[in-house]
Amino acid sequence: MSQDQSPATPQRLTPQSEDFSKWYGEVVQRAQLADHSGVRGCIVFRPYGYGIWEHMQRLLDRRIKATGHENAYFPLLIPESLLQKEAEHVEGFAPQVAWVTHGGNKELEERLAIRPTSEAIICSMYSKWIESYRDLPVLINQWANVLRWEMTTRPFLRTAEFLWQEGHTAHATAADCQAEVLRMLEVYRDFVETELAMPVYPGPKSDAEKFAGADMTYSIEALMKDGYALQAGTSHNLGQHFAKVFDITYQDEQGVRQHVWQTSWGVSTRLIGGVIMTHGDDHGLQLPPRIAPVQAVVVPIWRKPEDRGSVLAFIEKVKEALGDRVRLLVDDREQYSPGWKYYEHELRGVPVRLEVGPKDVEKSAVMSVRRLDRKKESIPLDQIATRLPALLEEVQADLFKAAQELRAANTSSATSIEDLVRHFVTEGKRGFVALPWTGDARLEAEIKERCAATLRCIPLDQSPFDGLAPAGGRVALFARAY
Amino acid sequence: MSQDQSPATPQRLTPQSEDFSKWYGEVVQRAQLADHSGVRGCIVFRPYGYGIWEHMQRLLDRRIKATGHENAYFPLLIPESLLQKEAEHVEGFAPQVAWVTHGGNKELEERLAIRPTSEAIICSMYSKWIESYRDLPVLINQWANVLRWEMTTRPFLRTAEFLWQEGHTAHATAADCQAEVLRMLEVYRDFVETELAMPVYPGPKSDAEKFAGADMTYSIEALMKDGYALQAGTSHNLGQHFAKVFDITYQDEQGVRQHVWQTSWGVSTRLIGGVIMTHGDDHGLQLPPRIAPVQAVVVPIWRKPEDRGSVLAFIEKVKEALGDRVRLLVDDREQYSPGWKYYEHELRGVPVRLEVGPKDVEKSAVMSVRRLDRKKESIPLDQIATRLPALLEEVQADLFKAAQELRAANTSSATSIEDLVRHFVTEGKRGFVALPWTGDARLEAEIKERCAATLRCIPLDQSPFDGLAPAGGRVALFARAY
Repeated sequence: MSQDQSPATPQRLTPQSEDFSKWYGEVVQRAQLADHSGVRGCIVFRPYGYGIWEHMQRLLDRRIKATGHENAYFPLLIPESLLQKEAEHVEGFAPQVAWVTHGGNKELEERLAIRPTSEAIICSMYSKWIESYRDLPVLINQWANVLRWEMTTRPFLRTAEFLWQEGHTAHATAADCQAEVLRMLEVYRDFVETELAMPVYPGPKSDAEKFAGADMTYSIEALMKDGYALQAGTSHNLGQHFAKVFDITYQDEQGVRQHVWQTSWGVSTRLIGGVIMTHGDDHGLQLPPRIAPVQAVVVPIWRKPEDRGSVLAFIEKVKEALGDRVRLLVDDREQYSPGWKYYEHELRGVPVRLEVGPKDVEKSAVMSVRRLDRKKESIPLDQIATRLPALLEEVQADLFKAAQELRAANTSSATSIEDLVRHFVTEGKRGFVALPWTGDARLEAEIKERCAATLRCIPLDQSPFDGLAPAGGRVALFARAY
Repeated sequence: MSQDQSPATPQRLTPQSEDFSKWYGEVVQRAQLADHSGVRGCIVFRPYGYGIWEHMQRLLDRRIKATGHENAYFPLLIPESLLQKEAEHVEGFAPQVAWVTHGGNKELEERLAIRPTSEAIICSMYSKWIESYRDLPVLINQWANVLRWEMTTRPFLRTAEFLWQEGHTAHATAADCQAEVLRMLEVYRDFVETELAMPVYPGPKSDAEKFAGADMTYSIEALMKDGYALQAGTSHNLGQHFAKVFDITYQDEQGVRQHVWQTSWGVSTRLIGGVIMTHGDDHGLQLPPRIAPVQAVVVPIWRKPEDRGSVLAFIEKVKEALGDRVRLLVDDREQYSPGWKYYEHELRGVPVRLEVGPKDVEKSAVMSVRRLDRKKESIPLDQIATRLPALLEEVQADLFKAAQELRAANTSSATSIEDLVRHFVTEGKRGFVALPWTGDARLEAEIKERCAATLRCIPLDQSPFDGLAPAGGRVALFARAY
């Protein structure tokens, strides 16, 4: 079959500037990241979308283990009586719980919740396992599905069932506990910035925004291309709330019974949504190379049938030279034209395309094209094994830089609630706005009411906001958020 | 603290010969593989048990991908109407389903099943995704939790919730479909024999024992140390049953609509139970090195406090020499004696122990001890990086050989049902019994009734049973099974 019997070029995506939300839905569907299922609020993670998650898992799991944690697995179902032990916790989650009432063909004596999060079931085990100071710290993580009955759902960003990891640790002292909270927040920052090329502000949230049952919640906050903030990960200091209601105690070195101090922390498949909205453009998805299932796609090009053999033979040499250094896809489908393939792999966000035509074969080189800016560079075969991995790292760095610039251009400051109202409401702007902050909960509620903007976090690193807050004071970041 | 203020040596395990079932429960608990949760039939996979599963996942996932499959993720919840589409399927699974009837605080219009297996939900998506012969084959796998409301449960072997992978593929022809069924059966055989050192018989099951909704089920069947068989993995030929009820069709090259042909195949955390019962002994668990979270444990030994420093310094050199070639644990806890540690790591099934005392330091060597037979070998430091990995491979091979010998010693033959009754009932024996087989379903039912033994499979490779069946005929294997 010749290369020009190709189907018509598919319809263009809705531009981001026209309807960002529609653009998002089209990218998710057409890049085959996910599909709606027949189950309310639940999506199917298609192989390409799940492949991104697998790379995220691999890169984060490594960091979780390097900081001394082990993985375990706790039951999906939580008896209602356990979930109700911690009052704030149940109040926060009860409206979102799906309940199992029948098993086999019988009605259960006690309803079972599908876990919306696993503090309750894990604490019930920790109270059995922890006896002595020698058992501490307990550093356990779980990769699992959880379910929260959401009213409005959106692929990856907010779905009834989602996938995540949840760390649950127990410590002897408040200081050890707080050190763990900050350690995992930093693990998340490093993971998200390094691997997903998504710049984030890490910092504590306000009381109004903290996790149900926590003393204190820290988050990393990212900015999407439409100016909305995305909470990309959280690390909670649970203090002794759960230890007291679940009776988790240890005998200290002096033989005295003490309650443990606990943390929990998690990131979820929501990060896939974050990647789409941080890097995507009007051509579609754009994947940071480190988490891209396909890092480079090879497109063979020929017009004369007699060129086909030499082009394909040359591509074999390229594959061989690269070995497993790069996740490579050779798109040798014959029913599609090269142009059609360019379009498709741009839509799917493949970071680099390698074009191989008769002229390239003649020069013993491939023509690389960056998805980010279509910058071309001819790479000789004998340099491909080192140059292509380097090029991918350059793309990774440039994506991060572009996202940082976008965030800088969309971060402003305010000195009063009136400034915020003008920004978010009158002028209809988005982005982060830094406001000097002393912790006034009533002001926070008023801002939420009047601006539909929430306090995202109080950045741990205040240096980008130097001079905005009065001496010794700090700023908080406000934004409309997903 | 000196090394002899150690706690008393823990109580010995119940010997296998005395009460195998009790031995099993004690190993699971005391090696900290799993714990009972407060949720009926659900266990907690503790880090050590989950670590074994992580290694299994890694080694099997690699094989699943190498045979062209991709991972995806489908919803946990299946609407009742979907589950009911395939009649045999729902009849087989309905008694085991847990039902969600309430979400948030409202009663649902339609009940949702927690997936006992995912054919129904996956088929509903395949009917959307598959259009043309160009879309075939669809080769998708999922790693997930599933739930079956079991009456009697046992850690790993039979639990309400368990973890598994389920492959679901769709093909253009019956031949492609059957080839896939056998390909994945072979993947399982290779995985289980190579990585878990567990010999298995692969082969088709009878109609009575097949999966609810399948045309044909193949399984790999292992033999446990107590003589019971364990179904260690299954590969189903679903024919067109699901394609017809879920309307999964494609347009063939001639433009004609055809139903696809489907397979599904899975292995689960039940394999952890299989490993325990294949290799464990009266000292506890015994892990094949390839799936052992800890492959070798280093135990420092000294009496005089002045030796401590040089022993620990030497162990640093051992660690450095090994790098990441071996998953090593240095057990330098000072409140336990060397003897106590030997006992504990034997209980936990660590394949090799490395003892390092002042004399070893003097010789610049470590004393290795195999968990399997306590065979000792002094390994010089300058050879440890090659010798220890080789020693672990020897242990792996020896474990497989021992399991093969045990199976051979517990496989016998019969020519009639009376032989089987004598074997299983009168003499109270276990193991596999090979019986010439022509597919007589009434005889099979009678054997089950009188012997409590089931037809495990009809081995694909009949060569071990040469001469047992009449010329051209085959034998089937019967056993009591988990």
